[in-house]
Amino acid sequence: MTTDPVPSPRLASLDDVRALLDALPAADLEAGKRAREREGRLTKPAGALGQLEDIAAWVSAWQGAHPPSAERVLVCVFAANHGVVRRNVSAYPAEVTAQMVANFAAGGAAVNQLCRATGAELRVFDMELERPTADFTEAPAMSEAECVEAMAFGMAKLEQGTDLVCPGDMGIGNTTASAAICRALLGGTAADWVGPGTGVDSAGIERKIEAVETAMETHGGALDDPLEVLRRLGGREMAAIAGLVLGARLARVPVLLDGFVVSAAAAVLHAMAADALDHCLAGHLSAEQAHRHLLTKLGKTPLLDLGMRLGEATGAVLAAGIVKAAVAAHNGMATFAEAGVSTRDDGPAVST
Amino acid sequence: MTTDPVPSPRLASLDDVRALLDALPAADLEAGKRAREREGRLTKPAGALGQLEDIAAWVSAWQGAHPPSAERVLVCVFAANHGVVRRNVSAYPAEVTAQMVANFAAGGAAVNQLCRATGAELRVFDMELERPTADFTEAPAMSEAECVEAMAFGMAKLEQGTDLVCPGDMGIGNTTASAAICRALLGGTAADWVGPGTGVDSAGIERKIEAVETAMETHGGALDDPLEVLRRLGGREMAAIAGLVLGARLARVPVLLDGFVVSAAAAVLHAMAADALDHCLAGHLSAEQAHRHLLTKLGKTPLLDLGMRLGEATGAVLAAGIVKAAVAAHNGMATFAEAGVSTRDDGPAVST
Repeated sequence: MTTDPVPSPRLASLDDVRALLDALPAADLEAGKRAREREGRLTKPAGALGQLEDIAAWVSAWQGAHPPSAERVLVCVFAANHGVVRRNVSAYPAEVTAQMVANFAAGGAAVNQLCRATGAELRVFDMELERPTADFTEAPAMSEAECVEAMAFGMAKLEQGTDLVCPGDMGIGNTTASAAICRALLGGTAADWVGPGTGVDSAGIERKIEAVETAMETHGGALDDPLEVLRRLGGREMAAIAGLVLGARLARVPVLLDGFVVSAAAAVLHAMAADALDHCLAGHLSAEQAHRHLLTKLGKTPLLDLGMRLGEATGAVLAAGIVKAAVAAHNGMATFAEAGVSTRDDGPAVST
Repeated sequence: MTTDPVPSPRLASLDDVRALLDALPAADLEAGKRAREREGRLTKPAGALGQLEDIAAWVSAWQGAHPPSAERVLVCVFAANHGVVRRNVSAYPAEVTAQMVANFAAGGAAVNQLCRATGAELRVFDMELERPTADFTEAPAMSEAECVEAMAFGMAKLEQGTDLVCPGDMGIGNTTASAAICRALLGGTAADWVGPGTGVDSAGIERKIEAVETAMETHGGALDDPLEVLRRLGGREMAAIAGLVLGARLARVPVLLDGFVVSAAAAVLHAMAADALDHCLAGHLSAEQAHRHLLTKLGKTPLLDLGMRLGEATGAVLAAGIVKAAVAAHNGMATFAEAGVSTRDDGPAVST
């Protein structure tokens, strides 16, 4: 097992990111077709594995290879702090971000257990927790240099030999940042995108709505550019997630999106290029209400719907277990001919 | 690892089955409560793991123990042949049942791969494939002795140390038998319960509907008794599944139900006692249309909805992966106090 990073393009400015979005690699339709052909020969009625069959073909197409592989699932959780927490938008104090990073390191968080249960490898990255972003209700959360650095940081975290990647987030205050990003990218009202997050009460939800509305006034006309939206409203963890999702596309690694925060970070790429998330599956539907609306805007149907709303990549990791199973079935099942099982039309197939 | 069977009560007649249904053990509410209490202390916002939290408490309650365990998942696939296939109700010839049993033994079927991916143990049982049940459009599928023997066979397949069990089916023609059972137990029309199964065309669906309607006439007033429904319309694999589900209740082993055929077999128990399936979770929603209707009648919400319709316990095995993850999170996560993570109300918790 190597942990060497996949070589990634140098990012010196947001224009370098824009250039990458203008020339995204496409799926390998030939590999996807080979997967579909094999699927039709496996010992089951055509289509009987439902979405598992679609997943196997999709992984093939985006890996650009048949057979597909789902042996090595890399989970990258990025942690950062947000200036907007000064406005009392979370049920938990900001120091919980660092405390949870320590909890990840000690193996005590939900994502640790889910990675163990699923056979996924967890990496956690602490992004200058002692230096929160600026309060986006008053100023841009990040300078261009900070935003570019965070995107490059995330992009560089993809490791050689990764078959699937699950980006995750930890950051007290980041559902407020996500709501602001969605409002800026996708319209609607602040209330459309704000929810309880870690569990604020109705007064907390009002504060979140007010923070988002204030941010729209503060940043006004600068929000037509999706990367400016990310820089002005996002956090370092969200920029890193966007960078990792983009880097995965360049490296032909399919992505499983987690919940609201990861999807909001990915939505920045989608706003820049409509096909930018075609290498991503929505791992699950979060109980954070705005996630359903966001996935609809992204054109994604979630694999799982288990009422989870924790972040940390937990929903994506569970979905990775489904993808691993789908690929195992695709690669390991016998064909009708191999097993000597009669097909529906031809009578007994020839054993080999 | 032992494969010793769990001791099960002797079944000499269907009355012995009826007596068991009259005295089913209840859930251990105290164990479930201990799970809920621990869940509230784990390092996540209350409720943030959604259904995973409910699953952990449910497993505790039905195992009658806290902490719950999901280490050992036993998958029992029962295979049998059905006389009704003479009426051309399947897209595949009857010999496919035996061919698929050989495929299971060789490791080539979908359930083999899904068990490997999920860490579940597969057992496959061939139930007199050379001796199909009688054609239920003309006569009872099984004698009482045959039905009791098949139920006892299934019940005896539970092994010591099993944490969760997933019953599965293989039997050409058994979606027709399942539709007949559902029609007899739950009313409606034959068309409400008949679907394409392995993939029959519209003429095949008409033949299935006709077989179910003819069976209703043939067996008439004898169908008020759910065990008579099973004996007259079911197959050996379905009687075995009902026996295993019942045996699991007696042995305090939670059950994951698979798709339409397993659910129809379990529905026989539900018709005898409304609480008979309280130790069962619906693992998934099958694409076989009648499954949704059946789960509604059973009061079950499926964990997964992936468009699968293969049987073989494949949907239940995928769901077992979710249950394993839920139990791993419940048992392995740190509490706020252990991790020194601040709670929402109390400020920093005390490190231990």
